[in-house]
Amino acid sequence: MVGIGDDGALLSPPKGDAIVATMDTLVENVHFLPGLDPQDLGYKALAVNLSDLAAMGAQPGWAFLALTLPEVEERWLQCFAEGFFSLAEQFNVDLAGGDTTRGPLAITLQALGFVEEQLALRRSAAKPGDGIYVSGTLGSAGLGLKILQKEVGWSDPEAVERLLRPEPRVLLGMALRGLAHACIDISDGLAADLHHILDASGVGARIDWSHLPLTDSVQRYIAETGDWLMPLSAGDDYELCFTVPSEKEPMLGACLQNAGVAWHRIGTIEQQSGLRLDKGGEVTVLLPAGYQHFS
Amino acid sequence: MVGIGDDGALLSPPKGDAIVATMDTLVENVHFLPGLDPQDLGYKALAVNLSDLAAMGAQPGWAFLALTLPEVEERWLQCFAEGFFSLAEQFNVDLAGGDTTRGPLAITLQALGFVEEQLALRRSAAKPGDGIYVSGTLGSAGLGLKILQKEVGWSDPEAVERLLRPEPRVLLGMALRGLAHACIDISDGLAADLHHILDASGVGARIDWSHLPLTDSVQRYIAETGDWLMPLSAGDDYELCFTVPSEKEPMLGACLQNAGVAWHRIGTIEQQSGLRLDKGGEVTVLLPAGYQHFS
Repeated sequence: MVGIGDDGALLSPPKGDAIVATMDTLVENVHFLPGLDPQDLGYKALAVNLSDLAAMGAQPGWAFLALTLPEVEERWLQCFAEGFFSLAEQFNVDLAGGDTTRGPLAITLQALGFVEEQLALRRSAAKPGDGIYVSGTLGSAGLGLKILQKEVGWSDPEAVERLLRPEPRVLLGMALRGLAHACIDISDGLAADLHHILDASGVGARIDWSHLPLTDSVQRYIAETGDWLMPLSAGDDYELCFTVPSEKEPMLGACLQNAGVAWHRIGTIEQQSGLRLDKGGEVTVLLPAGYQHFS
Repeated sequence: MVGIGDDGALLSPPKGDAIVATMDTLVENVHFLPGLDPQDLGYKALAVNLSDLAAMGAQPGWAFLALTLPEVEERWLQCFAEGFFSLAEQFNVDLAGGDTTRGPLAITLQALGFVEEQLALRRSAAKPGDGIYVSGTLGSAGLGLKILQKEVGWSDPEAVERLLRPEPRVLLGMALRGLAHACIDISDGLAADLHHILDASGVGARIDWSHLPLTDSVQRYIAETGDWLMPLSAGDDYELCFTVPSEKEPMLGACLQNAGVAWHRIGTIEQQSGLRLDKGGEVTVLLPAGYQHFS
């Protein structure tokens, strides 16, 4: 591979594999609060892209970083690089190129991964009868943001950590190849992202409130505020939401035991369009009320 | 290919080819003047990346666009898209994904192309005795910038066009596979970019002032100002600079006749390090005084 130092990077993917490419931009004041630790920023810029690769079942390969900075601060860059490479090394991601420019702080990261084309996980593959699953817990990053913004009067370091240092579910995504039908990562909130699966697959779904994986802190937040929509609408969880055909559901335990994260069945894909939430027997229709860019 | 609408794009490069990846960011007030026609901006964001692919001898395949905008203006986006796609269609480039975010105006574009790995053109392959060539003319974009900035009291629409709408030398780069030793695109000025070849290849060079391809307008600018360094140090020409072994120089005429651009021999690669300019018998050493980021 020709890396940084030529006009482009020269990459050799495994013969026959398709390339999976993702791109995400983080802008100060839009995607992160000013003054954020550059180490967290370097980590997260890569994490959100690896999360997209995971949602396709791809193995990460290379990253390209476009960094726009108001001025060059050696210390800032060093911390950013530390955060970035701590995650890159964990998943053998090579920083293969990029561009550094002067301007308002923004980070665009592009990641390339690879997967056998017929095994790639797509949003459009959900089928009626599939079980709907999510990894990890819901709403933790959303609670973390409310804590940092002082909307909540108490703290939970784990929730803040989940916001600043989401763990891309790379091993889970790879383990779901040939097992899951549809898959997406939850970046805009479960309601919005599950709607993406439903729209792309031409199906509907019913999920059960009592099955949503919520931490004690998120349950406390809901008890105090009544804001039960938060874990369904808050973004930044970067967990995977995936659907599994019923005949393969019994295999999940064995197949996902090395994926490094817990997972829960929260509902079922149905023929009837729309997303229905069963909350103690009362069924409401959920709109894709997740975080909207340019809202 | 799964395009925009899934977590990532799924791309299938030609079997056995290596992937060439480039990334460039354009920031308002740094890389372009405020108020620039969005159509020119859309064109140029892609052009500078295709130019990098051309410098590697790669065939363009896909582009990923990260667009950061202060606000959504339909008219602006439409013009930007028109400029972008006018060039994308010319070279069969698919817009395969990207990200749109709110923030200070900036454009990061990533392009992927492909080439047989052993045929990829590299900066590091120049050998003593190679002829040094450039396509097109030098300094035209630099003059165009001086005209827009009103540093010059007259105009030349062709020079301004060269600044705003550089033509990526894609066909030339592909025609140079197996023919040229080293190749680079001239984005930071000939002196700086030829130095990149010399440094990467561990060689030096001598170029002849009288052989530099200069338009009448650039010659007029030099005659009026005495600024003869401009065509060597001004950036944004996006021509290719390449070296060719002497035994292959006689084949250039036949091999490059469909490349769609003129080319000139401007000097020779030498064993002795450094870049020497012969200007009417007087030899000066040229430093890489091109445009420097963060200068």
